[in-house]
Amino acid sequence: MMLKKGRVTLPAEEGLEKEISRLVDQWGADAVRDSDGTKLTKEIMGMTDKVYSKLFFTRGDQEWAKANLDQLQHFYLMSEHVTAHTEKVVIPIMKGYFDQQVKPDTDHDPKEWWEVINRTTGEVVSPEDWSYHDETKEVTIDNAKKWHRYTVSFLAWQLWDPVHMYNHITNNWDTEHHMTYDPHYPETREYILNKLRTWLEDHPDTDVVRITTFFYNFTLVFNDLAMEKYVDWFGYSATVSPLALQEFEKVKGYKLRPEDLVDQGYYNSPFRTPSKEFLDWMDFQQQFVSELAKECVDLIHEYGKEAMMFLGDHWAGTEPYGKYFKNIGLDAVVGSVGDGTTLRMISDIPHVKYTEGRFLPYFFPDTFKEGGDPVGEANQNWMQARRAILRSPIQRMGYGGYLSLALDFPDFVKRVEEITNEFREIHDHSKETSSYKAPFKVAILNSWGKIRTWMSHHVHHAIWYKQCYSYYGILESLSGMPFDVEFMSFDDIKQNGIPEDVGVIINAGDAGTSWSGDKAWLDEQVVSTIREWVHQGGGFIGVGEPTAHEHQGEFFQLADVLGVQKEIGYSLSLDKYNKQSEEAHFILADQYEPIDFGESMKYVYQSNAETKVLAMEEGDVKVAVNEFGEGRSVYIAGLPYSPENTRLLLRTIYWAASEEAIMQKWHTTNVQTECAAYPEAGKFVVINNSYETQQTTVYKADGSKEALTLQPMGYKWFDI
Amino acid sequence: MMLKKGRVTLPAEEGLEKEISRLVDQWGADAVRDSDGTKLTKEIMGMTDKVYSKLFFTRGDQEWAKANLDQLQHFYLMSEHVTAHTEKVVIPIMKGYFDQQVKPDTDHDPKEWWEVINRTTGEVVSPEDWSYHDETKEVTIDNAKKWHRYTVSFLAWQLWDPVHMYNHITNNWDTEHHMTYDPHYPETREYILNKLRTWLEDHPDTDVVRITTFFYNFTLVFNDLAMEKYVDWFGYSATVSPLALQEFEKVKGYKLRPEDLVDQGYYNSPFRTPSKEFLDWMDFQQQFVSELAKECVDLIHEYGKEAMMFLGDHWAGTEPYGKYFKNIGLDAVVGSVGDGTTLRMISDIPHVKYTEGRFLPYFFPDTFKEGGDPVGEANQNWMQARRAILRSPIQRMGYGGYLSLALDFPDFVKRVEEITNEFREIHDHSKETSSYKAPFKVAILNSWGKIRTWMSHHVHHAIWYKQCYSYYGILESLSGMPFDVEFMSFDDIKQNGIPEDVGVIINAGDAGTSWSGDKAWLDEQVVSTIREWVHQGGGFIGVGEPTAHEHQGEFFQLADVLGVQKEIGYSLSLDKYNKQSEEAHFILADQYEPIDFGESMKYVYQSNAETKVLAMEEGDVKVAVNEFGEGRSVYIAGLPYSPENTRLLLRTIYWAASEEAIMQKWHTTNVQTECAAYPEAGKFVVINNSYETQQTTVYKADGSKEALTLQPMGYKWFDI
Repeated sequence: MMLKKGRVTLPAEEGLEKEISRLVDQWGADAVRDSDGTKLTKEIMGMTDKVYSKLFFTRGDQEWAKANLDQLQHFYLMSEHVTAHTEKVVIPIMKGYFDQQVKPDTDHDPKEWWEVINRTTGEVVSPEDWSYHDETKEVTIDNAKKWHRYTVSFLAWQLWDPVHMYNHITNNWDTEHHMTYDPHYPETREYILNKLRTWLEDHPDTDVVRITTFFYNFTLVFNDLAMEKYVDWFGYSATVSPLALQEFEKVKGYKLRPEDLVDQGYYNSPFRTPSKEFLDWMDFQQQFVSELAKECVDLIHEYGKEAMMFLGDHWAGTEPYGKYFKNIGLDAVVGSVGDGTTLRMISDIPHVKYTEGRFLPYFFPDTFKEGGDPVGEANQNWMQARRAILRSPIQRMGYGGYLSLALDFPDFVKRVEEITNEFREIHDHSKETSSYKAPFKVAILNSWGKIRTWMSHHVHHAIWYKQCYSYYGILESLSGMPFDVEFMSFDDIKQNGIPEDVGVIINAGDAGTSWSGDKAWLDEQVVSTIREWVHQGGGFIGVGEPTAHEHQGEFFQLADVLGVQKEIGYSLSLDKYNKQSEEAHFILADQYEPIDFGESMKYVYQSNAETKVLAMEEGDVKVAVNEFGEGRSVYIAGLPYSPENTRLLLRTIYWAASEEAIMQKWHTTNVQTECAAYPEAGKFVVINNSYETQQTTVYKADGSKEALTLQPMGYKWFDI
Repeated sequence: MMLKKGRVTLPAEEGLEKEISRLVDQWGADAVRDSDGTKLTKEIMGMTDKVYSKLFFTRGDQEWAKANLDQLQHFYLMSEHVTAHTEKVVIPIMKGYFDQQVKPDTDHDPKEWWEVINRTTGEVVSPEDWSYHDETKEVTIDNAKKWHRYTVSFLAWQLWDPVHMYNHITNNWDTEHHMTYDPHYPETREYILNKLRTWLEDHPDTDVVRITTFFYNFTLVFNDLAMEKYVDWFGYSATVSPLALQEFEKVKGYKLRPEDLVDQGYYNSPFRTPSKEFLDWMDFQQQFVSELAKECVDLIHEYGKEAMMFLGDHWAGTEPYGKYFKNIGLDAVVGSVGDGTTLRMISDIPHVKYTEGRFLPYFFPDTFKEGGDPVGEANQNWMQARRAILRSPIQRMGYGGYLSLALDFPDFVKRVEEITNEFREIHDHSKETSSYKAPFKVAILNSWGKIRTWMSHHVHHAIWYKQCYSYYGILESLSGMPFDVEFMSFDDIKQNGIPEDVGVIINAGDAGTSWSGDKAWLDEQVVSTIREWVHQGGGFIGVGEPTAHEHQGEFFQLADVLGVQKEIGYSLSLDKYNKQSEEAHFILADQYEPIDFGESMKYVYQSNAETKVLAMEEGDVKVAVNEFGEGRSVYIAGLPYSPENTRLLLRTIYWAASEEAIMQKWHTTNVQTECAAYPEAGKFVVINNSYETQQTTVYKADGSKEALTLQPMGYKWFDI
């Protein structure tokens, strides 16, 4: 007998008491919550066991903001590149920026805090040679070098909290713009703590304080047409202030340049190999954020309430896989579930009692409108998230946005009822025990490692990018596979070698990016350690442009391990004799269609005669396997997410680890289906990851098998 | 009344007297020639006005070669990269090489002449730490760094002339392998001159000495399966010898390292930006070759014969667009015509009285066999070459290979009759006057400039490469267009600025290659000069990855000029708002099918709001136009050769030059047709570049027009 209630949080709002009461039953909700712009009434709060109340620490109090304009948050921004047509160059620094969001900060001397750079030579222009005119928002450079390009890196005030701005514009609100205040300023810090105490006093009915989030938002900048201009979910552009930079200098012993934060206009995107300066800045802010966050959480606990952090919005510095996170002492983390990857990003978070997922679609008018397909979005979201939940569960689920919008879509309301039931069933059957995992770990190797656990190859939370999906598919496939996954950096390898329990290392990405590793592959310790490890039996999987940095006649630095190389034009004179292997191979045993390599990779060729090329297109190698000593390596040109590619990756991992023999444990024959087993709970489940009916056979741990049929998106639980 | 005879050279051979006599009439041949492995009889030599006799300077005399094994030619080769599994590494240096072609040179102390390099660190291994074992052809490194990669750069004797090897293997010969001797050795030099004098004495019937070629072959290395391993038609790997290197040191004042020639195994491919050391080496050898070649040519002239150089084979150092070529004093150059580009490579050669083209297919068994299509190959070859001849004619034509093979294909013999007639007609009508050209030049800008005139984006003479055809198409299109074309290097721009008569600059290629320019784009003088020139009205066309080298926040360094930028992963956070222009545009006015961009280019985006995007695919910009001051710029993602793309490029050039108004002079409406006019001769011709009948209208210089129909591959001459 399954529980029909619990584990579900409902977004509620004033005026919908009747509907909410019905939904609390239908969805089995045991908690209600408010949202940005909504309030809960006493009546609503009485409907469920728990009440969540949102709390913004650094926005929402316009009075404080207005009274302390000198303590608003900043960011460092860069102007466009401007070409000098004459020796006098005028750079309109606000060109392309949204003046409702950005205001150049002239209260702090531009000559001290800004940087004008000749981008042709890379030289900083002496402050004596330029001036800023606030009326026109222009920097004028005298004595410019004609036909060189110049930029201005400037400090600006944030006039509008970016998430409030986003919600406001997306939902067509007509509200006052929330300004954000910076707790690096002692008065604001004190205010925040006092305000929290008052707030806690004022919210006796609140059980869970939903912190959205702590202090500094990820980078989200709009353009002069009020459209998104720059978004980096991992960005630190909005964490700066003159005060923080001065504190940094005291703590770290050196001064940062604006360029350390502006980074040529790349703003230290996670696709960049992080500089020491940027890592130091992250570390400095993480420490600051975690210390103040801990004070806040302690206070919340003092009032007998739980502290739940939203993974998103003002989350800069709270990175859950970073080294200071555990100090904060949070009870829970809630985050948006875009797919399996982002589910694992939440569910794998350590040092909290539980995690909660916010499922898609958000109840926003972009989906909940005539012609919208909220059921379709919910199905896709659930189908991808479910795989991940079976491997590493979140404890609770919920939805975001504005309930009134969802109520107009009864099919959606019905479908959510089914999903919430299925979610509870998973917990009931698995009894919070661990699902079966292979006896070796899979490591994703890149320049970031642990702190970006389930966060590699992302620009913005779960958003599709043409340059990413062919790599992101690896994460998405892995999110629902029976492997423990570890994210490892090149520094980890240099400091600790490769952990004993790692069976396979995956390196995936475009050359030059942090994900592939760029210059890390010139490090002799890195390449030597990996070569030795593979030679002694390790498995190495490269996707796209792995181990790539042109050096000493080689582009893929581990061409010896991979057995393939990429032609970048310098060795076109070398004849390439790619030869597709005619033997059947373990890793392709379940392929029934041409492999979808996504954006794929051109010009890869067989560099060892012994390499087995398993797939070629237009003369280029797309899949190849190689043996290196006792170890094995696989190259794949790209791996977008699909059930077929998930199976390809599963087989690739077992083969690379030289563990083909154990793959067939809790394994299904039909690639559209997967099995998760809970040996301690004595249960296993088989799921259908497609919209069609599927027949499949499950191989159990003892070698016995069972055939079954699953409805579209269906699932069946069995006793072991 | 057209001449039915003349301008044609026939490859002849002993025993085919009757057939040759017939063909002399049918093809109107006025010259016969021998080939590698064939001889002419007195009877044959009497059939035509002129007799060509091949002459090899550095091969063909096995007695000399065997008696002077210490004066054979060398090359510098690199072993494979070998990974150190232990501290003792064994590198089989001959692995992958053909022992009938390559023999490691131990007569010159390997410790002095070879280099063992740790390719992980780039460090040279001390000669004390390695030893060479000639029995096993292995280098053993002691004290290697485990898991590093090592190579051996070694000096080797050439045991087999590469062209003789190629002919021998391709034609299944059973002949003694020609060895090549090196005229840097004084005895061999003297021998060559003496031999030449004897040869001239012995060949009283020879009118034209066809030099094949002077002294050093381009790089052509076979592998251990006797298949092509490495081919670089521009290569200098076979120009080295200890003696020449010692002379170099005296002349240039410094010593070259093996690495300067081996270049990490890239062997200074023309796709590499040339190093100063390599340019010095080329200069040194060009000077040497031209001086000795002049002595040979003077001697030939002494005997009243013409000296004709074959552009190919042992042509290293004779570069016809190099600065020493004119000193040689040649009468003529003959070369293989692969297409329009290679025709222009020959026909534009300065400082000779005439040029001759060797048309395809060669009479070799790879084409002249059952199932072969010699007529098809001849048609394609002629159709592409004809366009180029009309703009810059060769004076003579001919075929290569073995006549006996062609005689079995009567359709082919018939088709050649038509082609030779058409060729003579062109000369009769044009009366050797210049065809009409636009009043501005088109410059191709790359790292090589003039010396590689019509030679950019080539690996091996006219051979298709996947990485090249999308750029090579520009040359092929240009070869038959009414423009004077100039090849310009970055150094030219730095030293001389941009010549007055240049209207349009084209920069095309993959990032990192010499054709795109790589680090040349970091040179402030280069970018400033071009920006200023465009701003004042110049036209700039970028294809593929023009002006590309990641620096200071930009990948395309002239993004301001081009109006587009390429995303390489670092600025994915920046939103891209590519918007296809809805206006019709001059450059696309003749497009009737989706443009074929060949390998194309991904991730290019609009970087200026003012840029007009004319073509997009999957969100990426494929064609864009931009205005920069008074000048204009066009970006195209790739441009393989086709009549449609030729028209696109024609329009692009006129538009970029701001000269749209004058395009319609001797211009045809149908893109499958073209017109060439000879104002001084009072004639114009219209050609059909397709295998279908075409209707077209020609616009004459005075604005009048004429409609006509052309047969497949047809042509019509008119009086102006």
